[in-house]
Amino acid sequence: MASQQRVTAAVLIIGDEILSGRTQDTNLNAIARYLGTHGVEVAEARVVGDDEDEIVAAVNHLRDRYDYLVTTGGIGPTHDDITADCVAKAFGVALHEHPEIIAMMEARWGYELNAARRRMARVPEGGTLVKNPVQGPPGFQIGNVFVLAGVPSIMRGMLEDVGHRLKGGAVVISRTLRVDGSGEGVIAAPLEGVAKAHPDLSLGSYPFFSNEGYGSNLVVRGRDADEVARALDELETALAGAGVARMERLDIS
Amino acid sequence: MASQQRVTAAVLIIGDEILSGRTQDTNLNAIARYLGTHGVEVAEARVVGDDEDEIVAAVNHLRDRYDYLVTTGGIGPTHDDITADCVAKAFGVALHEHPEIIAMMEARWGYELNAARRRMARVPEGGTLVKNPVQGPPGFQIGNVFVLAGVPSIMRGMLEDVGHRLKGGAVVISRTLRVDGSGEGVIAAPLEGVAKAHPDLSLGSYPFFSNEGYGSNLVVRGRDADEVARALDELETALAGAGVARMERLDIS
Repeated sequence: MASQQRVTAAVLIIGDEILSGRTQDTNLNAIARYLGTHGVEVAEARVVGDDEDEIVAAVNHLRDRYDYLVTTGGIGPTHDDITADCVAKAFGVALHEHPEIIAMMEARWGYELNAARRRMARVPEGGTLVKNPVQGPPGFQIGNVFVLAGVPSIMRGMLEDVGHRLKGGAVVISRTLRVDGSGEGVIAAPLEGVAKAHPDLSLGSYPFFSNEGYGSNLVVRGRDADEVARALDELETALAGAGVARMERLDIS
Repeated sequence: MASQQRVTAAVLIIGDEILSGRTQDTNLNAIARYLGTHGVEVAEARVVGDDEDEIVAAVNHLRDRYDYLVTTGGIGPTHDDITADCVAKAFGVALHEHPEIIAMMEARWGYELNAARRRMARVPEGGTLVKNPVQGPPGFQIGNVFVLAGVPSIMRGMLEDVGHRLKGGAVVISRTLRVDGSGEGVIAAPLEGVAKAHPDLSLGSYPFFSNEGYGSNLVVRGRDADEVARALDELETALAGAGVARMERLDIS
């Protein structure tokens, strides 16, 4: 039987383009889902700009507070790509050119290995490489920190080399009950009753509104599958008692 | 002439559903773009779960550190909607049922004003209402903190009642130069040269890769339109000198 232990992670999204609104971040979502399947729960996320002091402070705070930290962005060859520098500073170690990355890049670019490209070969002392199956140089891991690319397709490729390094806890199971035609004002009391009876579970209500109607998706989350199933039964009974007629268990989580 | 002053904001996204990966946040992006047009720059964003201690700590840290704080989520009628409670606690004031909201809800729901719905009428002492032109109860402002809904369509509606309350600085102007067929390894040096010559501007490179080819969007951002234009000229000249042949100024920002 799986352990009921909670294993946590933070996500640090690095980049001016996210804060300016130029780019819509999707990495947090992809990381949260991926870590969830490995029994690691994202407990906090932060977005900071391309600023050394901000990045160093966030890395040190988050790696200390959670079991893991995953960063995205700032590992390219341009002057605003300072994540490796900042992570090295946060750990108090030097950066060095990793021989495997230099060899990889020489094989690809040959004599074109200019200063900008060499920049991408820098890894903090003690770091190990995170494979990049998409394109470009790898990411790296140092201690409990994983440093991944910002481009979503590359980031997702790198994640595949992260899961096997995690010591996850119990996977959180999530079940959704869709309620149609009843608003949260009606749902709230029965939902709260079931939530209070199950302090180890997390119950949430996510309302929707459209031309076709309105309602709410009620989500029950927890590490004990039996308890999640019992709570879902109790929720249906309590909602029916409050006059909710249209309910449907969804296959989505 | 517009002031060159930097006015900053933080965004605090509240909700387990964002951290679990169940919901893709789009509010940060919408808020960043909206505040940008009002001369307010989002300097940091955080995502926290539905946890009182986490929310109170984040509200107090962020409202103290930046000119404004915008929160989204957690203002509905269910037990996990605790944002109003947390903001009141952060400010050390009581929550009270706001008479305008009660009147609004009575007009709509009449005798059905149950405890869950009354919950949505609670505003911290000293708070003023933020109009909700979409549906449901309003948000509120207290001090430099704006408390908005989590549902994106409602959040965006509420934002329209936020802009006129902001004392913005100079609007950040953003121009994009698209480079096709050259990678960041070639772009990095000329980009860095121009960046160093313009420490008041922010220059970034955002690579793209597709079946049709690869390249990078180079973005120049700053508060002085003349300087942004000069830097863009210098960047084109420097890139041409480095052998970059295909460049195009984009109309998008």
